[in-house]
Amino acid sequence: MNSQNVFMGENLQELTVHGKKEFPIQYYADELFRLPGCQFPLHWHTEIEFFAARGGSIKAQIGRLEFLLEEGDGVFVNSNVLHSFSQLRPEDRCRCPNVVFSGELIAPADHLIYQKYIGPLLSSRQLPCVILKPSIPWQNSILSCLDRLFSLMQKHALKEERRPLPLLSFDSPADDIPCWEMQVQNELNRIWQLLISHAGEIPPVNIEKGEASLQIRMQKMLAFIRSHYASPVSLDEIAASASISKSEASRCFQAYMNQPPVSYLLDFRLEKAKQLLSSTPDTVEEISRKCGFRSSGYFCRIFKRRTGASPNQYRRETT
Amino acid sequence: MNSQNVFMGENLQELTVHGKKEFPIQYYADELFRLPGCQFPLHWHTEIEFFAARGGSIKAQIGRLEFLLEEGDGVFVNSNVLHSFSQLRPEDRCRCPNVVFSGELIAPADHLIYQKYIGPLLSSRQLPCVILKPSIPWQNSILSCLDRLFSLMQKHALKEERRPLPLLSFDSPADDIPCWEMQVQNELNRIWQLLISHAGEIPPVNIEKGEASLQIRMQKMLAFIRSHYASPVSLDEIAASASISKSEASRCFQAYMNQPPVSYLLDFRLEKAKQLLSSTPDTVEEISRKCGFRSSGYFCRIFKRRTGASPNQYRRETT
Repeated sequence: MNSQNVFMGENLQELTVHGKKEFPIQYYADELFRLPGCQFPLHWHTEIEFFAARGGSIKAQIGRLEFLLEEGDGVFVNSNVLHSFSQLRPEDRCRCPNVVFSGELIAPADHLIYQKYIGPLLSSRQLPCVILKPSIPWQNSILSCLDRLFSLMQKHALKEERRPLPLLSFDSPADDIPCWEMQVQNELNRIWQLLISHAGEIPPVNIEKGEASLQIRMQKMLAFIRSHYASPVSLDEIAASASISKSEASRCFQAYMNQPPVSYLLDFRLEKAKQLLSSTPDTVEEISRKCGFRSSGYFCRIFKRRTGASPNQYRRETT
Repeated sequence: MNSQNVFMGENLQELTVHGKKEFPIQYYADELFRLPGCQFPLHWHTEIEFFAARGGSIKAQIGRLEFLLEEGDGVFVNSNVLHSFSQLRPEDRCRCPNVVFSGELIAPADHLIYQKYIGPLLSSRQLPCVILKPSIPWQNSILSCLDRLFSLMQKHALKEERRPLPLLSFDSPADDIPCWEMQVQNELNRIWQLLISHAGEIPPVNIEKGEASLQIRMQKMLAFIRSHYASPVSLDEIAASASISKSEASRCFQAYMNQPPVSYLLDFRLEKAKQLLSSTPDTVEEISRKCGFRSSGYFCRIFKRRTGASPNQYRRETT
């Protein structure tokens, strides 16, 4: 995951490219304490995610459900499932390793292994996520595989990509073997075997009727906001993007985001503005326009109210 | 491998389909003592082969080189390399497990793992084969993986396919897990990692200059005989199929088959005739014609001289 890129999507899903087409996996180490509200915001992707809680407890929102991840726990997040992670205590320093990858890294879509074991699990509505606890042996085996996987990715993939991620320490330091990508594939294969072999023991997630269509509506509205935030956007238009009523749109946002649509839109615009303030030489006037604020006066007032600093003060502090 | 099918190819290579397109691996258990001359004849395929010597010592011919496999040894035979296996002592009862599989079972051709680790090894002219000895730790690790792989394939793949192969016993009996194909992929991944990691320690095979083109000539001539044996075939035509002189063709056959081209052609026709005698109701006259003999009288004389029985006696004994 990458919090900056999450906001860049113009489409129905997070547009970040997770790894390369010929090796579709990406490693991240999210420093939740550095993010607004100590939270990695709600997002989704077609790829599979494995995330581990490090440095404190984490509140995971998967779809509309909330789970507590204690330090050392992990979670499997299925394809296309909305999810967010937030640090429970503001004083913690959570640096959480995670990987986002395509099931095709294990086996291509036209192979029997994909058709029998990967595709069916990815499309299972009953399995939006699996919480992984060290106290349960097969889950602990997955956590050990993840530890080796993170360690491999940090050591080898990061070195090649030169992405500025914090370096974490792992229990299983990666060997210096000349085919680390094959080791990565091997760990994923083992993790998947464990998931498949114990699928019957995974407690069913309490999914409410209609959850899937609710989530699709939410994804449509989020995608609409992401691609239209620079222009004036009304609640009518947000609701229309998912073909639902305004009140239904508000209920949806309350359920998933715990805030009304227009408040989320404002947060989204302010985050985009912060990015532009610290990464471009654009004037406050230009940034205000690019982020869809109706006037720069209104932008400055609301920016100061929400962040405690004026846009120019923020720029000075962050550049 | 399957000795019957080896003779059925009409093309430049063994035409047997090794496994299914969506799971391209096939397991065999060759009973060498049941084959003519206790030998699995010279053949080749684009797939990779791993073969284990069981029940006695084996003489492996790889290209033009000969290796002795002692009981418990194994061998990796690279893509497109001519090879044959024969039992050293006629009194032994060698039942040799082997797998033939596509490198794409580990990773598809457009993935980084294939491009970096599989393709280059498959096309390496310097690595026609690797003999695997239990006394060398990394080779022993491969042999252990092979044992698990054979065991998995025998238990699960054979059950599904209902092929009549002898059942062998393995040191690592296969578990009853619900995703055996993923275990197969995992073992292949580990075997390949071991090969790649120790490639530098593999003693270079003494390949003579021009070996590759010699082998291609041999393959062309074998393919020509396989597709034309039913018609009159001259030494001129055999040589012409590889665009070489008659004397060069004879040298080639001597080097690889230890017999002249016309003698190999005769053996090939007799093997085809044996197959037809025991598997069809065709008359001796018809079989003689289908196998390219110029008259049934000549066919009967030569058949009796080589096998000790007349065609009709052979048919009675084998059906």
